[in-house]
Amino acid sequence: MARDVEAVLARLEGDGEGALGRLFEFLAIPSISTDPAHDADCRRAAQWVCDQAGEIGFEAEVRPTDGKPMVVGRSRQAPSDGGPRLLFYGHYDVQPVDPLDLWESPPFEPRLAEDGVNGKVIVARGASDDKGQLMTFLEAARAWVSTHGELPVAVKLLFEGEEECGSPSLAPFLAAHKGELQADLAMVCDTGQWDASTPALTTRLRGLAFAEIVISGPDRDLHSGMYGGPAANPIRVLADLLAALHDDEGRVRVPGFYEGIAEPEAAQLAQWRDLGFDGERFLSEVGLSRPAGEAGRSVLEQLWTRPTVEFNGIQGGYTGPGTKTVIPAKASAKISFRLVPGQQPARVLEAFRRFAAARLPEDCEIAFLGEGGSPAVGFDVAAPAFRAAAEALEAEWGKPPVMMGSGASIPIVESFQRDLGMESLMLGFALDDDRIHSPNEKYNLASFKKGARSWARILGRFADL
Amino acid sequence: MARDVEAVLARLEGDGEGALGRLFEFLAIPSISTDPAHDADCRRAAQWVCDQAGEIGFEAEVRPTDGKPMVVGRSRQAPSDGGPRLLFYGHYDVQPVDPLDLWESPPFEPRLAEDGVNGKVIVARGASDDKGQLMTFLEAARAWVSTHGELPVAVKLLFEGEEECGSPSLAPFLAAHKGELQADLAMVCDTGQWDASTPALTTRLRGLAFAEIVISGPDRDLHSGMYGGPAANPIRVLADLLAALHDDEGRVRVPGFYEGIAEPEAAQLAQWRDLGFDGERFLSEVGLSRPAGEAGRSVLEQLWTRPTVEFNGIQGGYTGPGTKTVIPAKASAKISFRLVPGQQPARVLEAFRRFAAARLPEDCEIAFLGEGGSPAVGFDVAAPAFRAAAEALEAEWGKPPVMMGSGASIPIVESFQRDLGMESLMLGFALDDDRIHSPNEKYNLASFKKGARSWARILGRFADL
Repeated sequence: MARDVEAVLARLEGDGEGALGRLFEFLAIPSISTDPAHDADCRRAAQWVCDQAGEIGFEAEVRPTDGKPMVVGRSRQAPSDGGPRLLFYGHYDVQPVDPLDLWESPPFEPRLAEDGVNGKVIVARGASDDKGQLMTFLEAARAWVSTHGELPVAVKLLFEGEEECGSPSLAPFLAAHKGELQADLAMVCDTGQWDASTPALTTRLRGLAFAEIVISGPDRDLHSGMYGGPAANPIRVLADLLAALHDDEGRVRVPGFYEGIAEPEAAQLAQWRDLGFDGERFLSEVGLSRPAGEAGRSVLEQLWTRPTVEFNGIQGGYTGPGTKTVIPAKASAKISFRLVPGQQPARVLEAFRRFAAARLPEDCEIAFLGEGGSPAVGFDVAAPAFRAAAEALEAEWGKPPVMMGSGASIPIVESFQRDLGMESLMLGFALDDDRIHSPNEKYNLASFKKGARSWARILGRFADL
Repeated sequence: MARDVEAVLARLEGDGEGALGRLFEFLAIPSISTDPAHDADCRRAAQWVCDQAGEIGFEAEVRPTDGKPMVVGRSRQAPSDGGPRLLFYGHYDVQPVDPLDLWESPPFEPRLAEDGVNGKVIVARGASDDKGQLMTFLEAARAWVSTHGELPVAVKLLFEGEEECGSPSLAPFLAAHKGELQADLAMVCDTGQWDASTPALTTRLRGLAFAEIVISGPDRDLHSGMYGGPAANPIRVLADLLAALHDDEGRVRVPGFYEGIAEPEAAQLAQWRDLGFDGERFLSEVGLSRPAGEAGRSVLEQLWTRPTVEFNGIQGGYTGPGTKTVIPAKASAKISFRLVPGQQPARVLEAFRRFAAARLPEDCEIAFLGEGGSPAVGFDVAAPAFRAAAEALEAEWGKPPVMMGSGASIPIVESFQRDLGMESLMLGFALDDDRIHSPNEKYNLASFKKGARSWARILGRFADL
């Protein structure tokens, strides 16, 4: 049943001050989840967002966990016959504020400021990550309900308070409330735009497989003079193994590593090429200049579409001041693979184990510790819900969203897929200069307003599916 | 002027009990140089050995230093016209005794024990390293003086008390007393026999060149998801560099590394081959089985005649428990080269720097820290003094000494060569099972007796040079 979205958008325009006031109330609660001193604040934030949901027609509850509480809700008045069942996810906890002296105003005293690049910005811890983003959705829902008396589609809500500390309670909570939370599509509002004038849907996340390897050689540390030459040196064995993992073109040499990987569609690659992304500038921001990944692939392709092996840590022998001429008994490295759709973490690790074992001198040993991982995520951007969301975003922004990838994983999206079988629409309005996790975090007022308008349009379009 | 050595040897036989009594007195002084609580004991040991020297006709003095005192002496009655001027070196300090509970008798209550393999053994800390060895020379000198009224050649003495803690006072002392200590040949009694029935002269010591390298890439630690692929990873750069240092045959690939190295004489190689040294057994004692050095070289050759590069320590990124998917800003390794005669530490390090720089991605940097080293030592075994010593040893043992190498350096020998321009006759009577630096250190009574007889013969032969 199609409804008039223009009235909803007009309502959002008319209630701009009200929306900002509500966000400021939320931002004033110092819900720092990593700091036990802010336990009560986290509970207060959970209750606040639960009350908000209740005000706009959700049946909502604060649910205790072993950690911070979850807020769960479902729309009361939404029609049960139209569109997909949706679950909206956000988090009410925020990062710590240290170093406090770098803040230009107190982090939990939200204010509007003027910024030469961004115009009006909302400054406070959590303004962007994730309170501001979360509220774009609730404001859109509020405008729908106050205009039409109900949401155009059925919506469930899930707000957690441990996103900034590893979400320890999330997996058990999902497992225990599977039926209640199940939906056709999750909407996760914790990502960014392509740039200030271009929306983005994140549709690809790399997965991860990791292990620590420990190479053992001699049964004790040896004097490198008395044994140097004939004695196997575990650091040398380890360096040889790590060096063997890449060929001269930057490709990973583990047999079968690239099997089953689908290349992105030509149209997708073309869209990325047209973005004018400056890979060298991206690298120069962290002091580098030369893409180190696979030859013949752009920096964006390397990040979004190509698996890698990375060395995260290495240790062996004497590492104190000065010199100690030792041949160590052991050397170890922490290794992780970034995966893309089509790769299985367990199979990658198994192939790596065989690759490593084949390169081991017969009198050395290798142990694989702490293995784990999660597969990559890749959603079909041609599926109806993604198409509908893209059309709604184009209507709002005057151009289609960039279908972005992310080099890193987003645990909630993996959990939704693995535990509830749900795909996620990852849509957010953060910008690269939002200073999330840093002093003077901000969210553009335009992000907040156009974010709410974007969700309002998307909910309307979903009703037609 | 040839003198009768048989009378000297007879004297040693006759005074066996006296010699053992003197050694036991010396061993009873707990002169542990690393432990400030034993400062007075170290001074007492210095005085004791000084008194011994005085008793047998040396003008000897205890000389203070910033650390433990030195004992310096010169023979009063020796003829000034015959033979080379000699300097005998030993050390009166000993290693700590921990773990004390593993000693079968108190470490400073020397005793004679019976050992199924070695016959009578002297058990005490320092019995072998170096008090027993030092006393083989003083007993030989005592027997010469008490038989003939003087030594057959002019002898100087130098005993230090900091050998077990890095000899910090030695270099300044040598520099300050150059003229006084100068001689034609040093005699250093701190090494071992080939086996219980075969004497050995150590004539080759590998040198050392070392450096720490630090590879820098990004200007901060990066998230391996957000940057993995395009961002240079310093651990990978470091592993590639270390792996590139050896070719498939175990040879070092730094250009010019092997330039100027003389291969040992064929006769020397033949002697070593005939020793029947079991390289695999040598490796099996430290849990290894497969020679890792240059292909086509025996374990002995690898240790005594071939230069190497060793990796003594490596560090980078996250090394704590669990996983952290970081691309570190830096990674570092401590590297050392073992050198052989013909190689110069500074030239080796310079060639290594060029080798490393050529392999560095253009947006990474490399720093070389804490460089240092000392050249290898290799003495001409055909020189008259070495030939004379070898003949004297053959007369005593019924077979010629093995001309051994050592994979490690001996700082005093380097100092004598560098600072005083003296070669060293490295002759000692320790055995591999002497447990030096360990509980229940022992010295075979036969080592003590035949050691003194060996020196007595050598002094006699030197008089003919």
